Amino acid sequence: MKMNKLFLFQWLLLLIFTKTSLIFSKPHKIPRLTPLIENIIQDHSNTFSSSTNDLPKEFETYYYKQTLDHFNYGPKSYSTFKQRYIISSKYWGGSNSSSPIFAYLGAESSIDRDPLGVGFLTDFAPQFKALLVYMEHRYYGESTPFKTMEEAVNDEDTRGYFNSAQAIADYAELLLHIKEKYSAKNSPIIVIGGSYGGMLASWFRMKYPHIALGALASSAPILYFDNITPQNGYYSVVSRDFKEASKSCYHTIRKSWAIIDKIASRKSGLSYLSRKFKTCSKLNDPFELKDYLDSMYSVVAQYNSPPSYPVTIVCGGIDGAPEGSHILDRIFAGIVAYRGTSSCYNMNPKPSETGLGWRWQMVMPIGRGENDTMFFSAPFNLNNFIKDCKKKYGVSPRPHWITTYYGGKDIKLILQRFGSNIIFSNGLRDPYSSAGVLQNISHSLQAVHTRNGMPNIYNYVKTICTSSLDYL
Amino acid sequence: MKMNKLFLFQWLLLLIFTKTSLIFSKPHKIPRLTPLIENIIQDHSNTFSSSTNDLPKEFETYYYKQTLDHFNYGPKSYSTFKQRYIISSKYWGGSNSSSPIFAYLGAESSIDRDPLGVGFLTDFAPQFKALLVYMEHRYYGESTPFKTMEEAVNDEDTRGYFNSAQAIADYAELLLHIKEKYSAKNSPIIVIGGSYGGMLASWFRMKYPHIALGALASSAPILYFDNITPQNGYYSVVSRDFKEASKSCYHTIRKSWAIIDKIASRKSGLSYLSRKFKTCSKLNDPFELKDYLDSMYSVVAQYNSPPSYPVTIVCGGIDGAPEGSHILDRIFAGIVAYRGTSSCYNMNPKPSETGLGWRWQMVMPIGRGENDTMFFSAPFNLNNFIKDCKKKYGVSPRPHWITTYYGGKDIKLILQRFGSNIIFSNGLRDPYSSAGVLQNISHSLQAVHTRNGMPNIYNYVKTICTSSLDYL
Repeated sequence: MKMNKLFLFQWLLLLIFTKTSLIFSKPHKIPRLTPLIENIIQDHSNTFSSSTNDLPKEFETYYYKQTLDHFNYGPKSYSTFKQRYIISSKYWGGSNSSSPIFAYLGAESSIDRDPLGVGFLTDFAPQFKALLVYMEHRYYGESTPFKTMEEAVNDEDTRGYFNSAQAIADYAELLLHIKEKYSAKNSPIIVIGGSYGGMLASWFRMKYPHIALGALASSAPILYFDNITPQNGYYSVVSRDFKEASKSCYHTIRKSWAIIDKIASRKSGLSYLSRKFKTCSKLNDPFELKDYLDSMYSVVAQYNSPPSYPVTIVCGGIDGAPEGSHILDRIFAGIVAYRGTSSCYNMNPKPSETGLGWRWQMVMPIGRGENDTMFFSAPFNLNNFIKDCKKKYGVSPRPHWITTYYGGKDIKLILQRFGSNIIFSNGLRDPYSSAGVLQNISHSLQAVHTRNGMPNIYNYVKTICTSSLDYL
Repeated sequence: MKMNKLFLFQWLLLLIFTKTSLIFSKPHKIPRLTPLIENIIQDHSNTFSSSTNDLPKEFETYYYKQTLDHFNYGPKSYSTFKQRYIISSKYWGGSNSSSPIFAYLGAESSIDRDPLGVGFLTDFAPQFKALLVYMEHRYYGESTPFKTMEEAVNDEDTRGYFNSAQAIADYAELLLHIKEKYSAKNSPIIVIGGSYGGMLASWFRMKYPHIALGALASSAPILYFDNITPQNGYYSVVSRDFKEASKSCYHTIRKSWAIIDKIASRKSGLSYLSRKFKTCSKLNDPFELKDYLDSMYSVVAQYNSPPSYPVTIVCGGIDGAPEGSHILDRIFAGIVAYRGTSSCYNMNPKPSETGLGWRWQMVMPIGRGENDTMFFSAPFNLNNFIKDCKKKYGVSPRPHWITTYYGGKDIKLILQRFGSNIIFSNGLRDPYSSAGVLQNISHSLQAVHTRNGMPNIYNYVKTICTSSLDYL
C-alpha cells in the first residue's frame, strides 16, 4: 500500500514536472527566439491538436461574456469578448458541500488539450471531490476579441488589452461567476498553473486572495524580471543539463559556434553551411543557423521529459556520429536525431499563435555573456529590445511594470509577513527554475523542487484544501 | 510626563478623527447628493483655499510624468500627465538611514492644503525622522490629464482612466520613483489616508505589499459595496448622532418631511415653502428642499468636530426657536444657525471639482427605508442608478467590480490568513464608520476606534515603523 502511494506520488511528480511541461502551456520562453521554439514545440504536440469537441463528455465547454478592459471605463472598455472555459463536475461534491474548485489558469495557448493534458486536476479531483475549471487566457484559442490572434496583435487598439493584469482580472470575474452559477459559495478555490500559467497562479493568489484561497504555481519564473535573476540563469541551466547528459556533447556544442562563424565568413561559406545543414532555403546569415540550434537546445532542455528525454536524443546524435566526424557533422547528427530524417530543415518557420502572442506579452531579460554558458554570446540589451518593440509595435515596452505591479524584489522579506498558501514547484532541470522561488518563504508559502528527492506535493495540496474547509 | 503623552494622544486623536475629517478629503460621500454636500463643505473650507505657493518652504512641490493607463498598452495609454506631489525632507533621517517614508495618498480633491491640514504626518515625522510625501490623486487639483476636472469628466475617452485601480497604480509607480530619487532603498513606506484616501491606503497595502510595508486607513468605508453593509448604515449613524445631541431635535427633523410634502401638495405650497426657507430661486419640487436638508444633516454629522460641533449648532437652532414655533420654523432656524443669516439660501449650487469627480468615481449603495432613520425614505435602487449613469455618461457602472478587485466580503475570514500591517481607524460618530473595519482581523490588521475610549494610535504606528526597520 505504501509502495502504491509512493508510486502515485512519483507518478504525480513526473506528471507535474515532466508531462505537464510538455503539454502545459508550450511557452515561448525566450522572446528573441519565439518562432523557432514554437515551431519545434508544435511539431511535438501534433498528437494533442484536438479541439474541445474531442474531449470526453464530462468536460463541458462554456463561454463567458468577458469585459475587454477591467481598468478603464471608456466606450471601448465596454466591449466584451467570449472567453472559453471548460468544466467537469464529474467528481464534484456539489453545491451544498464545501468541496473545492480546482481552477486551471490558461496560459499562452489554447486550452483545447488542457483537460486531457493537465493530469494533476483529474488525478486529484476524486479525492477532493473537486469541481474542475479550465479557463482560457484572453487572446489565445477561442478567446480572442477578434477573429484571430494575428488580427488582434496587429491591431494597435486591441493588443493593448492583452496583458497579464487584464488576464487575471478575467479569471477573477469569471471565477465569481462560476461560484454563483454552481451555488458554490462555500467552495474554496485553488488556482493552478504551469510556466507562465504558474506565474499567473501565484500572482492571482497575491492580488485576489479573496477569490483564491491557494495557488499551485508550477515552474513559474516570477523572478525573471528587472535584475532579480542573472540574465544567464536560463542558459546556464540548459548548459548544465547538457553537461550532465554528456560532457563530450556539451563540449562539441560549445566549440561549434566559432566554427560556424569561421566557415560563414569564407567565400561561399553560407552555401556550404546551407548544404551541410540541409536548410530549406539558403542561409542569409550564420545567425539563422545558430538561432535555430540555440532554440533546439533550449527547448529540449526545457522539455526534457520521459519517455523520450530529448536532451539525450540530441546528444545521442552528436556523440554517436562516426568517430573522427567533423564537429559540424556531429551537430547536424544531433538535429537529425531529434527532428528525424527530412529532405530539408526549415530555419525560418512561420510563428504560431503562441509565438505571436508571447512576443507581444513579456519582457524577460534573458541573455548570456561570453563563455558563461555553452552558447555563443548574446547578452540581453534593453535598448535594443526597446528599439525592436518600437519598430514592431510602435510603442515602448514597460520593463519595470511587472516588478511594480507584482513585486519580486526581496521576495522573501516582503512575503514572509504577507501572503499565504502558495506552492512554488520547480524541476531543477527546467532552465526557468533559475528564476523560480526555490526556498520556503513562510510556513504557507512553500517551495518544492525535484532533483533527486521527491517532495510530497499531494500533502501540500491537501493541507491547503483542508485548511480551506476550516476556513470558509 | 505621562499626562503630556496622554494629552498628545488626545490631541492626535482629535486630529485624526475630527480635524482630519474636516480637512482631509472633503469627500462627497453620498453620490446622489454631491452638489449640495460639496457646496456646504466648500463654504467651511474657505480658509484653506491656498495653493501650494503658500506652503512653508520645507514643502517642495514636484511633478511626475505619470502613465495615463497602467493596464493597457494601446497608443492612448502612452499618454502621460503631470502628477503633482509635495515632499518635506525637513525631518528625514536621510538616504543611508532606514528612516521611514510617510506617504499621504491624496483623495478626491486637490492636495493644496493637505501638508498643513493633515497634522498626523508632520506631528509624527520628527520622532520617526520620516520623509513626508503627499501625492495628488489623478484628475484632481493640478493632476488632471486635461486642463480641468470638468473637461476630463466630460470627455468619454479620458474619464475612463479615472478610477481607484489606476490611482493606486500611480502611487506605486511614483513611490518607487521617489525611493530611487532619494536613494531610500531601505526606507519602509507607510501609506496614510483618510476617508476615500483611507480606502486607497488599505487597498494599496493589499495590492502592493512590496511597496508599502504598512497602512493607516482612517475612516475608510471599504465595506460599503455590494450588500456587505446594510444600505441604511450611513443614515442610521447620522440619526443616532442627532438623537444623542438632542432628542427633541431628532424628533423635529423626523416629523418635518411629511409636513414639507403635505404643504408642497397644496396649491401655492411650493411658493409658501420657498418663502419660508428663503430659497434663492423658487422651488420646483419639494425634493429640492428635502435634499438640501438631508445633505446638511449628513454633512454636519460627518464633520461634527470641535470646536464648533455643527450637529449641536443645527440642533441649537432647531431646539432654540421660540416655544410654540411651527416645526418648519424650527427646521429653518436650524439652517440659519448653521449657515448664518443670509438674504437667501441656494438649494441648487454648482458642483465643485470634488463633486464632479466623485459622482463619476464610485457606486456606493447608500440609502434608507421607511422609518428606519430620521430621514424620509430613499432606498438605493441599483436600476435607477444604472439608468442615471447611462443617461449622464453613456455607460453602465460596474457595481460589483470593487468587491471583485479589492474584496470586502467575509473580510475577517479572508484576511486573517492573508495580509498584515493595516490600521483601520474609525470615529464611531462618523456615518461612514458603519462600513468601516471595526474589529481586529489579526494581530497586525488592527481596528481602532474612538467613542469614549482612546486607542493608542501612536504605538500602532510605532510598531509598524519599528518592525519595518527590522524588516528591510
